[in-house]
Amino acid sequence: MDYFYSRLEPLLRRWRDEKRIGFRHFSSGPNNRISDVAGVTVGHSTLNNRDCQTGVTAILPTQNNLYQQPLPCGVAVLNGFAKPIGLVQIEELGVIETPIVLTNTLCVGRGFSGAAQYMIEQNPEIGRALPTVNPVVLECNDGYLNDIQAMAVSEDLVVQTLKNTHAEFKRGSVGAGRGMSCFAMKGGIGTSSCYVPELDATLGVLVLANFGALPALLLEGIALGEEIERAMREPMSQEDKGSIIIIMATDAPLSARQLKRIAKRAGAGLGRLGSYWGHGSGDIALAFSTAPQSAEEQSTEAKSAELSDQQLDPLLHAAAEGTEQAVIDALLQATSVRGFGGNFRTSLSEVLDILCRKYL
Amino acid sequence: MDYFYSRLEPLLRRWRDEKRIGFRHFSSGPNNRISDVAGVTVGHSTLNNRDCQTGVTAILPTQNNLYQQPLPCGVAVLNGFAKPIGLVQIEELGVIETPIVLTNTLCVGRGFSGAAQYMIEQNPEIGRALPTVNPVVLECNDGYLNDIQAMAVSEDLVVQTLKNTHAEFKRGSVGAGRGMSCFAMKGGIGTSSCYVPELDATLGVLVLANFGALPALLLEGIALGEEIERAMREPMSQEDKGSIIIIMATDAPLSARQLKRIAKRAGAGLGRLGSYWGHGSGDIALAFSTAPQSAEEQSTEAKSAELSDQQLDPLLHAAAEGTEQAVIDALLQATSVRGFGGNFRTSLSEVLDILCRKYL
Amino acid sequence: MDYFYSRLEPLLRRWRDEKRIGFRHFSSGPNNRISDVAGVTVGHSTLNNRDCQTGVTAILPTQNNLYQQPLPCGVAVLNGFAKPIGLVQIEELGVIETPIVLTNTLCVGRGFSGAAQYMIEQNPEIGRALPTVNPVVLECNDGYLNDIQAMAVSEDLVVQTLKNTHAEFKRGSVGAGRGMSCFAMKGGIGTSSCYVPELDATLGVLVLANFGALPALLLEGIALGEEIERAMREPMSQEDKGSIIIIMATDAPLSARQLKRIAKRAGAGLGRLGSYWGHGSGDIALAFSTAPQSAEEQSTEAKSAELSDQQLDPLLHAAAEGTEQAVIDALLQATSVRGFGGNFRTSLSEVLDILCRKYL
Amino acid sequence: MDYFYSRLEPLLRRWRDEKRIGFRHFSSGPNNRISDVAGVTVGHSTLNNRDCQTGVTAILPTQNNLYQQPLPCGVAVLNGFAKPIGLVQIEELGVIETPIVLTNTLCVGRGFSGAAQYMIEQNPEIGRALPTVNPVVLECNDGYLNDIQAMAVSEDLVVQTLKNTHAEFKRGSVGAGRGMSCFAMKGGIGTSSCYVPELDATLGVLVLANFGALPALLLEGIALGEEIERAMREPMSQEDKGSIIIIMATDAPLSARQLKRIAKRAGAGLGRLGSYWGHGSGDIALAFSTAPQSAEEQSTEAKSAELSDQQLDPLLHAAAEGTEQAVIDALLQATSVRGFGGNFRTSLSEVLDILCRKYL
Repeated sequence: MDYFYSRLEPLLRRWRDEKRIGFRHFSSGPNNRISDVAGVTVGHSTLNNRDCQTGVTAILPTQNNLYQQPLPCGVAVLNGFAKPIGLVQIEELGVIETPIVLTNTLCVGRGFSGAAQYMIEQNPEIGRALPTVNPVVLECNDGYLNDIQAMAVSEDLVVQTLKNTHAEFKRGSVGAGRGMSCFAMKGGIGTSSCYVPELDATLGVLVLANFGALPALLLEGIALGEEIERAMREPMSQEDKGSIIIIMATDAPLSARQLKRIAKRAGAGLGRLGSYWGHGSGDIALAFSTAPQSAEEQSTEAKSAELSDQQLDPLLHAAAEGTEQAVIDALLQATSVRGFGGNFRTSLSEVLDILCRKYL
Repeated sequence: MDYFYSRLEPLLRRWRDEKRIGFRHFSSGPNNRISDVAGVTVGHSTLNNRDCQTGVTAILPTQNNLYQQPLPCGVAVLNGFAKPIGLVQIEELGVIETPIVLTNTLCVGRGFSGAAQYMIEQNPEIGRALPTVNPVVLECNDGYLNDIQAMAVSEDLVVQTLKNTHAEFKRGSVGAGRGMSCFAMKGGIGTSSCYVPELDATLGVLVLANFGALPALLLEGIALGEEIERAMREPMSQEDKGSIIIIMATDAPLSARQLKRIAKRAGAGLGRLGSYWGHGSGDIALAFSTAPQSAEEQSTEAKSAELSDQQLDPLLHAAAEGTEQAVIDALLQATSVRGFGGNFRTSLSEVLDILCRKYL
Repeated sequence: MDYFYSRLEPLLRRWRDEKRIGFRHFSSGPNNRISDVAGVTVGHSTLNNRDCQTGVTAILPTQNNLYQQPLPCGVAVLNGFAKPIGLVQIEELGVIETPIVLTNTLCVGRGFSGAAQYMIEQNPEIGRALPTVNPVVLECNDGYLNDIQAMAVSEDLVVQTLKNTHAEFKRGSVGAGRGMSCFAMKGGIGTSSCYVPELDATLGVLVLANFGALPALLLEGIALGEEIERAMREPMSQEDKGSIIIIMATDAPLSARQLKRIAKRAGAGLGRLGSYWGHGSGDIALAFSTAPQSAEEQSTEAKSAELSDQQLDPLLHAAAEGTEQAVIDALLQATSVRGFGGNFRTSLSEVLDILCRKYL
Repeated sequence: MDYFYSRLEPLLRRWRDEKRIGFRHFSSGPNNRISDVAGVTVGHSTLNNRDCQTGVTAILPTQNNLYQQPLPCGVAVLNGFAKPIGLVQIEELGVIETPIVLTNTLCVGRGFSGAAQYMIEQNPEIGRALPTVNPVVLECNDGYLNDIQAMAVSEDLVVQTLKNTHAEFKRGSVGAGRGMSCFAMKGGIGTSSCYVPELDATLGVLVLANFGALPALLLEGIALGEEIERAMREPMSQEDKGSIIIIMATDAPLSARQLKRIAKRAGAGLGRLGSYWGHGSGDIALAFSTAPQSAEEQSTEAKSAELSDQQLDPLLHAAAEGTEQAVIDALLQATSVRGFGGNFRTSLSEVLDILCRKYL
């Protein structure tokens, strides 16, 4: 026990004095956000009405017409207890051709329909002179805080969210993150970025964090679960059906195969937090590159210079660190929420403050 | 040339006299349908209104509560230019827990939402005391005959289709097959079954056939493309953006891993028709087993006796043959359809009749 | 029955008069061989000594130093009852960095060791200043005609085979093909090539054919199994533990992801022959591109212009056709062989001649 | 900096006083070894002769005839810069039918040949009346400490190692671990086990640890890389071409699909150590279950009662923790080694002792 507290105390002290936890190998980009990768924007629609605590988050990989100029993209399914839409085609063709929609599990159908309408509006020949379109919709189950059966997200709300995205965006209990839980505390949207000087490249991460069994949680390598449980404002639910969606953007020029390798490293980042990618969790990572593709790419011309695989290590490292950082960001930015049936999730900030008062 | 006609003539003669093409290694089940596997039922909703030529087809793997007693299931993506929903979780958990919805590409979101509503109606604790649900929705692009941008399939139509399924069902230009094309002719819904005496088991197949480049078509090994093109009532479109969905049901007791092996053999069946699983085609096969699972399966008890892999060969063979037969059934059952923008697809029966008049 | 003979007769007549079966959509390259792709060479070492009927076949994808300039490569495992070496790294990195060694199942270890020695001789810093090397060794089980337990292939024989390859090479019962069986007849090495005019590209195929259940065989769509069985010189073994290795080379500039798509289409080609990729068969396809890669590729520079996926269809088609053609070539080139324990396999040519005498 | 030392000091103090690092969620089995799973035995042959620092490690999953009664098995390739043998068939059939051989990268061919001979000796009908056999041989590159080009492991040494395995076995710089490096220190063989009380099951892990970039190392969440570098006895090599093989055994009754899920969680365990599964690393995990299979399993009868997926979480957790523990074990058990060209790796114990003297 002594050993435990000798390790806990410095962490709490730093939290009290500097309001931060975790450490970094990489410097962040200017705003420590996924939008540090130029062109990436994010928008939220948040539904907050008693039992209804849910929403939509949209990520635009580029401000260009993505359907006409798709970007290289790779996907990794760490654990597939999940209802994603759009991954099969990304795996086959290696490109993403629409924005990414995040929402609750039962509303991914609405996410698809809304994204399809948004894409048709921008590309009126979709499904006519041109092929159909492959919307990417990813989800977590917010059923603890949100009346998920209400299917409160409409197709229109999805369209509207897609039309209102910005480089600046909120984190925590907003958008698709509104009703999410993480390690039995309040989860939601988190972000981070890592700058890789040897490649002059940035890798940004956005997570929808709704995963983790509290007894397994590690913060800076310290197993805080029991302490946190005791510090909770209200007894926590023991059921832990999580999920986490990890979106990575980079301006490094990479192939789909390389991006898949990078996306997989989200799993290493989750491991640092003590996660073992639980059975009931849909843990899915997607990575795309915004590096300029020559206009002719869709015909017969060459891609811009891709990195060789021998250069990937710093990006793999950044993918792991960026994921861990984005989850910590989600936990620290989230505010406590009461929702469906009176269920409640305390925020990590609140928990840490309680622990500080108790031990320091 | 002489050689070609010496081979074509017997085929046409048999068509004229017996109205059939193809040959079989296996006997069929009693109705040569997927519903020869006890418990499987199929329903269609067909939309036929000028530019709108589309619909929904639903397949119920069992009349039991599938959410409470999911069935072992495997999936094979032969070519992933496709927008399927539900496959990631089947891959991870090896079970199917909902009926299968087939529809046009841009309506899979509606398919998901409708199927979710249908499942909640039957299982009111979904997303509450119980986990969420994993609807399986598969699609082909019917944009040649159908105004696919209209997204004419509603969530309600999906629910309604799911509630009206039968062991007897129509084939050809119905349900999701209404607007589909196949080898530049009219495609749609086809079915078949194979009885495997050494296992006393049946393997049934249902296809949504919308694939195939006419110049590659083989019928009984004969490259009929040019002949068919000349026999068309109207010039055919040259663009061939296909897809085929292949659903397999069997009463043989099999694991998810074994069912995945069986599903893959759809590709061998397509090969017999000359298909090379084209780039633009979403060729996806799904196989499930209806063999009785002990009620305790969801807790800690054993499965019913699975077959060993050494016994699989006749089922692999049947999967290939059943796929080929079901496609031929779709082609022969389909009726000619005129749809979006006046586009037209001739039926194979009509084409064969024309060739008979020409050559016999 | 009448129908069957009305279809068989033209096939036999053409065999008698022209000594060929099958038909082609594509023209072949100048020699209808994998070596029609410039730079590809093939060598055989054949062991023919009573019970010992086996050997080694080596395929060099290029005459350049492949370790220093690896080529893009993709792999498809159609059925994985197989003992391949080298595929995991190809899947991860998308390149091939050694020649390909084919041999019998129990000698793949020798194949690896021999290939490693050969590579070290050419690149003395392997495993020292440079990484280790990833030999690719593929196999079929020739245990029916060959005393496979004898493990008759030595590491030296592998090295020697790798050092003696040519654009001209033998087919049939030679090299690794010496002891192979195919549809219960004599199998072995076969090859073919397809020229794709719209891309000015060639796709070459080499197969080690050791697969197929005779009752399922289709030649030009005709189920010849029973006829062949009756025509056999000696009763055939009923056990059918097959395998087929399919190697594809192309000079079209393609990425690893695209080459994987092409390799998969071997399965469509096998389907045309009636194969259902049997349980006991290790059916593995590998495709590489010899298109010039800029010398800097291993550093940070761009690849030469890759084709877009929209251009792939003719190559997918050629991959299916080339596979079927190469198997037919293996069957027709093979000579009858007696081997282990007196076991015997009749050649297809002999069988067809017998059928001609019987029916024409 | 102050923050760093406030966290380092407790770790060093515990090392000095208790000679341990890390913490555990699970209790270990009786010996904290993979052989806590009944039936599992391990043997080593170590070559230690100046430039030659390498060896073989063999793991027997059972003392029964594994070829006649294969065990369910799953595999996960975390990063595939690797030359494993045997994985393709495990993936297809879901069983392991031979012991597992670990050795250096260039000797996997010898590993295959030796294992094949060992299996034939035990099963004289392999490749005759019975199918061939699928040896599993996994490797890491020990080229920094070992003259890997010498290919010092013979087929005979492999056979001999397979014949001498025990529940008690050495760890650290022995067997295949002799020449391995880990986080620029001495790596090698490590082991651990976790007891899962709710399932009354044990999960054991054995690693061949040869991975990790020192700057990324986390011990108990502390980034010790720079401190360790300064404490090294000799300057370390900067090149980090790692790899780690993770073997998991459990007596819980599980299917191949479930074992694959468990194997994947090795990646979460590696993440806790700061690993990001580097580009040049072959990170491969294999898990098998020793739960009694009914004798009839190879015919048509049922398996013993498998766990449901809902029960997997503690095993997933144990797989992550067991991997981390086994790597720490390898690091702590390893002794410093000087080898090829005078290259040297310091052991972690030595490094920690130096740090204790410096800071406490």
